[in-house]
Amino acid sequence: MSLHISAKTQAMPASAIRKLVPLSDAAKARGIHVYHLNVGAPDIKSPDCAFQAVVDKCKGMHHLSYTNSAGLIELREGMVEKYYKKIGIDIEVPELLVDVAGSEAFAVAMQVAADPGDEIIVVEPFYTNYQTFAYLNGITLKAVPTDIREGFRIPDISEFEKLVTPRTRAVLLSNPCNPSGKLFTKEEMLAIGDFCRRHELFLISDEVYREFCYTDEPHFSAMNIPGCEQNVILVDSVSKRYNLCGARIGCIVSHNRDVMTAAMKFAQSRLCPPVLGQYAAIGALDTPQSYFDEVRAEYIRRRDCAVEMLNAMPGVFAPTPYGAFYTVVELPVADAEDFARWMLTDFNRDGATTMVTPAASFYKTPGVGRNHVRIAYVLEVPALRKALTILGEGLETYRKQHADEMA
Amino acid sequence: MSLHISAKTQAMPASAIRKLVPLSDAAKARGIHVYHLNVGAPDIKSPDCAFQAVVDKCKGMHHLSYTNSAGLIELREGMVEKYYKKIGIDIEVPELLVDVAGSEAFAVAMQVAADPGDEIIVVEPFYTNYQTFAYLNGITLKAVPTDIREGFRIPDISEFEKLVTPRTRAVLLSNPCNPSGKLFTKEEMLAIGDFCRRHELFLISDEVYREFCYTDEPHFSAMNIPGCEQNVILVDSVSKRYNLCGARIGCIVSHNRDVMTAAMKFAQSRLCPPVLGQYAAIGALDTPQSYFDEVRAEYIRRRDCAVEMLNAMPGVFAPTPYGAFYTVVELPVADAEDFARWMLTDFNRDGATTMVTPAASFYKTPGVGRNHVRIAYVLEVPALRKALTILGEGLETYRKQHADEMA
Repeated sequence: MSLHISAKTQAMPASAIRKLVPLSDAAKARGIHVYHLNVGAPDIKSPDCAFQAVVDKCKGMHHLSYTNSAGLIELREGMVEKYYKKIGIDIEVPELLVDVAGSEAFAVAMQVAADPGDEIIVVEPFYTNYQTFAYLNGITLKAVPTDIREGFRIPDISEFEKLVTPRTRAVLLSNPCNPSGKLFTKEEMLAIGDFCRRHELFLISDEVYREFCYTDEPHFSAMNIPGCEQNVILVDSVSKRYNLCGARIGCIVSHNRDVMTAAMKFAQSRLCPPVLGQYAAIGALDTPQSYFDEVRAEYIRRRDCAVEMLNAMPGVFAPTPYGAFYTVVELPVADAEDFARWMLTDFNRDGATTMVTPAASFYKTPGVGRNHVRIAYVLEVPALRKALTILGEGLETYRKQHADEMA
Repeated sequence: MSLHISAKTQAMPASAIRKLVPLSDAAKARGIHVYHLNVGAPDIKSPDCAFQAVVDKCKGMHHLSYTNSAGLIELREGMVEKYYKKIGIDIEVPELLVDVAGSEAFAVAMQVAADPGDEIIVVEPFYTNYQTFAYLNGITLKAVPTDIREGFRIPDISEFEKLVTPRTRAVLLSNPCNPSGKLFTKEEMLAIGDFCRRHELFLISDEVYREFCYTDEPHFSAMNIPGCEQNVILVDSVSKRYNLCGARIGCIVSHNRDVMTAAMKFAQSRLCPPVLGQYAAIGALDTPQSYFDEVRAEYIRRRDCAVEMLNAMPGVFAPTPYGAFYTVVELPVADAEDFARWMLTDFNRDGATTMVTPAASFYKTPGVGRNHVRIAYVLEVPALRKALTILGEGLETYRKQHADEMA
C-alpha cells in the first residue's frame, strides 16, 4: 500500500486538444496574441431565444431543483416535435434522453454497447475523447483507415470486415466528422448500416455537427437507415447547433428500448442534466431556419478561405471538408506536434501567432497523422486570413530551421 | 456476436432512490397526492443573488462558450476566498476544480484513488451511488458496520483495521451522512484520519451537507485533520448549500497536487462544467450568513417534528440525526421495500399517501437494513406532519394485513 494515484488514471491520456494550452497561456503572458484555430469554439452568436428563456425562467424562481434524470419533459417533447420531426428523424419521447452534452451521451452509448475487453470499430481520424472513454472503460478501439488524399472517403466495407472479431460490439463514428470535416454520404451510411446489421453491431452515430453540411444533399442521419432501427444509437448535442457549448446539454436517442432502459440507469446515477442549460435548450428550439442558413453561409465562406490559403502554402495538402468546421491538413513537417509547440514558444509575426491541434492522437494506427494538424475554421474571414498568413509564415521559417531533418 | 446490452450495464444496479418513481407516477395518475419524503429535494428558497447573477450574465450575452475544464477562474477564486476561507478551510485556487456536481466529484475521486480490483472502505449506511460508481469502475466497497440503536456512531477503529487488505486504497464517507443524518465528531474524524495516514489511504470526504449541522460544535472538515493534507480529497457541491440541485455544480478539492493533476485529466475529457450553473454558483457566493441561519433553524424544527412523530409510532425506532436532512428509521416490518411499494400501490388516506426510500441498498452487509427506510424531512412542518400521519396510519394498516408474516 502507498498513497499513489491509480494506475488507470496515471496512464490516462491527457487531452490532445487541450494539452498545448499551457504553452498558449505562456505566450499570452509574454504579450503574444494567439489566434485559436485549435478548438471548436466558434464565435457565432447564439440565438437570442436561448438566453431569453433562461432569463424568463430565472426571474422570480423559487429554487432550482432536480429534474427527471431523463431531462425536463418540456425539453424532450420540444426536441422531438420542434427539431427532430422537422429534420425528418421520427422518434417518440421515450426514445430520447437528455444527457450532459454529447460527451456524456457517447460515453454512455459506448458502455451500453461494450463491456471491458470488447471492441468498437471507429473510422480514422476520429474524435480523441472516444479513445479516452474507451480507455476508461477497458474498451479497445479498432480503426478503419482512410486517406487524406482521397478526402477521407470511407473505404470498401471489406476494410470493416477485416476488423471484426468475436468481441466486436459497435461501430462509432461522427458525421460530419470531427476532426476531418468528412461528411458521410447516404451510400456510405447505408453500407455501414448493412455491415452493422449483418454482424449484429450497434451503430453509434455522433451527429452533433449535423447542421454544418456544405453540400446540396441534406444530411443523412443513421436514424434513417432502413432496417437498422434496433442498431442505431444517436448521439447529439445543442453545443454546436446553437453555439451553446457551455450549456452542456445533449441527448442519446434510440428506437431500441433496451438501450434507453440502460441509458436511464446511467442517467439516474448522476441525478439530472444541468437545469439552466435545459432552459437554454428549450428556448433554442424556437431558433428560426434563417439562423441556420446564415451560419451555414458564413462557414462556407470560412472553409473556402481556409482551404484556398492552406493549399497555397508550399507542401501543404488540405482536402475540402463538406461538414463540421474542421479540416485535417497535411504539413511538410516530420512532427506536427513539434511544429504546433514551436508556433507557441518560438514564433510570432508582429506579436501574434496561430495555434493548431496536432492530429496524431486522432489516429489509432501508429505513425499515421504525425504530419497532420486539425484546423478549426472558427474565426471570421479577416481574422482567419491573418491567422493562416501567420501559420504559413511560421511554416516557412520552421522548415528552413528544420531543413536538415526533412532532407 | 449479437445485438445485446453490455453485461456491465445489465448488471448495473438501478437507482434505489428513484426506482419506485414509476409507482408514484402511477399513484399520481390515479389522482393520489404523494408526499415525497423519499428524495433530498428540499423546498427551501434559493438565495436570490444566484438567479440574479444568471440573469445579469444572460442579458446581452453573445454566445455560451466552453470555460476552462477546471471551471471559471471567477468561480474558483470566489469559492476559495468567499466560502472556504470563511469556514476555515484554507486552500489555494489550484487545489480546487469545478465538477459537474458532487456526483462527478466523488466518481472522479474514487477513480483517482482506486484501480479496478482495488477496495474502498465505506461506513454503513452510505449513499447508494457510491456503490454504483464503484461497480462501474470495478472497485469493491468494504463496509464498516454501525448500529442504528447507537445513533450510527463510528465504531472503534479496529473495525476499520479488520477490512484492510493489500488492495485497500481509500476511505469514503459523507459527513454529515446521507442517508443516516449522522454527523461525524472531530474525534471520529481524527481517528479515521490517523487510520488513513498509517495505512497510506486516501480519505474521500463528501461534505455536501456541511451547512446542515444541528449541534453547537462547528462542522469539522476532513481538510482540517492535521497531517492528513496529502490524504484528503474533499467532495463538495452547491446543490444542497444553496438549494441549487439543478445547477449541477460541485468541486473536488485537495492539497495533493497529484490528485489535482489526475482530476484535471477527467475534467478535460468532459470539456467543461455547465456554464450557466457556474454563473448561479458565482452569484450564490454572496449569500448572507442569515440565509444559512434561517435554513438551519427551519431544519431543526422539521427534524424535531419528524423524530418525535416517528418514535411515537408503535414499533418504530428513529435516532436523532445531527446533520443533513435525512434520517434512517427502523420500521416494524419484515421488508421495508415491500411496505414502501404498498404505500404507493395500495394505500391512501383521503386521497394522499407518503413515499419513503427503502434503505437496504444503503447497506453493503447482506440482510442489514431490510426493515429500514430513509426519510428526507424536506417539507414544511404542516406538510411534514400530514405526511408522517399518513405514514403512521399506513404502517398500522400494513402491519394488520401482514400480521401473519411478522408473527
